[in-house]
Amino acid sequence: MSDIRMWLEKKLLQLNLTNSMDVPEGFTRLSYTEDEARAHHEFRSIAADLELSTFTDNAGNQWAVWETDSNAPTVAVGSHLDTVHNGGGYDGVAGVLCGLAAVKILKDQHFTPQKNIAIICFASEESARFGVSTIGSKAIAGLLDKEEQAGVTDAEGTTIKDAVNSFGADWDVIEQAEQTKDALESFIELHIEQGTRIENNNADIGIVRGVACPIRLKVTANGMANHTGTTPMHARKDAFAAISPLVSFVEQEAKMVSSTKAIPLVATVSTVKLWPNAMNVIPGKVEFGIDIRSVDDASKHNMVTAITAYSAQIEARTGVEIVIDTLVDNNSVFLAPSIQEKLRQASQNLGFKSLLMDSGAGHDVMNMAMKWPSGLIFIPCEKGISHHPNEHARLEDLQKGTHVIAEYLRKETGEIHGN
Amino acid sequence: MSDIRMWLEKKLLQLNLTNSMDVPEGFTRLSYTEDEARAHHEFRSIAADLELSTFTDNAGNQWAVWETDSNAPTVAVGSHLDTVHNGGGYDGVAGVLCGLAAVKILKDQHFTPQKNIAIICFASEESARFGVSTIGSKAIAGLLDKEEQAGVTDAEGTTIKDAVNSFGADWDVIEQAEQTKDALESFIELHIEQGTRIENNNADIGIVRGVACPIRLKVTANGMANHTGTTPMHARKDAFAAISPLVSFVEQEAKMVSSTKAIPLVATVSTVKLWPNAMNVIPGKVEFGIDIRSVDDASKHNMVTAITAYSAQIEARTGVEIVIDTLVDNNSVFLAPSIQEKLRQASQNLGFKSLLMDSGAGHDVMNMAMKWPSGLIFIPCEKGISHHPNEHARLEDLQKGTHVIAEYLRKETGEIHGN
Repeated sequence: MSDIRMWLEKKLLQLNLTNSMDVPEGFTRLSYTEDEARAHHEFRSIAADLELSTFTDNAGNQWAVWETDSNAPTVAVGSHLDTVHNGGGYDGVAGVLCGLAAVKILKDQHFTPQKNIAIICFASEESARFGVSTIGSKAIAGLLDKEEQAGVTDAEGTTIKDAVNSFGADWDVIEQAEQTKDALESFIELHIEQGTRIENNNADIGIVRGVACPIRLKVTANGMANHTGTTPMHARKDAFAAISPLVSFVEQEAKMVSSTKAIPLVATVSTVKLWPNAMNVIPGKVEFGIDIRSVDDASKHNMVTAITAYSAQIEARTGVEIVIDTLVDNNSVFLAPSIQEKLRQASQNLGFKSLLMDSGAGHDVMNMAMKWPSGLIFIPCEKGISHHPNEHARLEDLQKGTHVIAEYLRKETGEIHGN
Repeated sequence: MSDIRMWLEKKLLQLNLTNSMDVPEGFTRLSYTEDEARAHHEFRSIAADLELSTFTDNAGNQWAVWETDSNAPTVAVGSHLDTVHNGGGYDGVAGVLCGLAAVKILKDQHFTPQKNIAIICFASEESARFGVSTIGSKAIAGLLDKEEQAGVTDAEGTTIKDAVNSFGADWDVIEQAEQTKDALESFIELHIEQGTRIENNNADIGIVRGVACPIRLKVTANGMANHTGTTPMHARKDAFAAISPLVSFVEQEAKMVSSTKAIPLVATVSTVKLWPNAMNVIPGKVEFGIDIRSVDDASKHNMVTAITAYSAQIEARTGVEIVIDTLVDNNSVFLAPSIQEKLRQASQNLGFKSLLMDSGAGHDVMNMAMKWPSGLIFIPCEKGISHHPNEHARLEDLQKGTHVIAEYLRKETGEIHGN
């Protein structure tokens, strides 16, 4: 096994705070928890071993900088270390790990960059705890809606504000985490694909053009709770019986769109809440959460129109009132073609087959792309499984990703163009 | 307003620990909580005013006894004061209240019973807290499975054992709450109908023949959790999309049975749990709770067969594994025809139209009927609404029920037959 592959294996375990990646319950490092903080601590420790200077910003993001010249531009690479509940050890970790490993390669080769290189470990990328994603990168890009987010709570009632403060960051001055346009020259992220397109196309590396941002709906059905044993079938207003056909409708519509249009769409009824959710009471109220994604924004809106029309039919047929709220409606983010081309070139230099593709998931790079030319590299993950204990990326794919980042950084920082 | 109606109105408020029955959030007095204990305290207070002797048994049941002769038989009347979450103020309370009011009528008339009369306020009838119903009456009838129940916990992790002990009862000797066959001669309960059959038949009082006990199923669908944004529609094993058509199937089958057979059946998918229930994760696992009731036990079992066959079709079509567990399968309980006839006669003596009917809900009387000749009286409740803040029974119907109990007790205890 090559040195760098052994290093990747060892540091993968270290960043995951584990002795083995084969953990039946997976990894749980929710946003702004002690678990995320412990992973950040390992990040700083590895960065220090690489002789990078580290600091923490007011949003709790970790920075590890290979500083050459404080007046030179800074090229940044990063991802995150937090996870969903019982998630995998590669989503986020892969990008942080390969960024650090790329620095190691360049240092081992006694490369002397002409620009500064920053590896960023973003805080709180996953929405699993607060329902809000990419808090750290939003803060860096100046996209955090501080007033709107301050009062958001987790399942235990802890506010984001309190969580940020107990993380050692400072909510009151979190806006100071924002970086100026000049502070960075560009940004790239590496992430596991969370799909199987790279593998299906016999490619090594994915280079992302557009990131499909979700529309998220809350669909509420208001029926009438009553006793399950004493209320005749014809006298019910069962909110769950009324709304349940929407689940299949969403699935079938998304399948239809994906099989007939060039740009796929995915849609999922992913959350359900029932009131009172008791064995002997007819469901009086049901709330569905629906997640709709495509890089074709019009296609997402057509899906919302179809869901609205279908819900109106249910309402007319059953008398159960259905209310649709839009929780999130973000347009797709398209990444800088110049960075795509540089990443494609870096892959080609290494003899890797790259695939130009879109991302169905959101990542920190979406926020960074609002302010700086940005790119996103995908590496394959087994069977496309992610957000699950079985999530797995092969060491050889982590290694390929590392070499692409190192090659990109070498070209990007090896000489100053037009300065 | 008559004296007894004013008394009913006042004591209804007292037993509900309220100044008004018009409470938007309804009443929440879960099993073996401080709230149930406070209602029990009011029961003892009213009983003491009626000069009944009171005692609490080891299951936390309250007894109020009009003792005439300790060697004479005891005729019992009772119901419960606990409620579901945000329930109404009549389910249970009506029976306790009318039992006490019947004693008041007989006392006001200087009636001298030849047998003892016991009003029982059963502890913990509702399953809302522990998923176990009618704990108090099970204990009295000797039907409590102490070993099986000891470790059952509520949502906060409190065991039934701890709840019983903190209620002032004693789990370790709860079996001492059991009454011998000789201790009681008979038992009757009054309850709100929780349906509209009495009203629809222009009757005053319902007299119950059979109580439909539920079959309860847990249906688990095991799919595969994955990222909602990156997993193409054709590559999913969405447990919720797979299982959701079962909700409509259950509703349609129950409607079909109810419209084609003489004895109705009701069936409800009343509880749902999703894993991980997160906006950006495809549901990997879903658990449905299904409640099936009919006094025709064969009809319930046919429903289970239909659900099993339909689930097998889903499994074959989607590859999502479906497992069906039977949580509860109790046969219907048929009440003593002799008591039915006595209650019918009492109603007729008062000029009330009675309706012979079945009960779709379980009540404490089911347990008492296992040991003693037992009867169940229904009074109408508005629109059949129950287990809901809008639950309402009119004072005049509470009064009618009271008079039926008083008339029944007068006949039943007025003279000793064959002693």
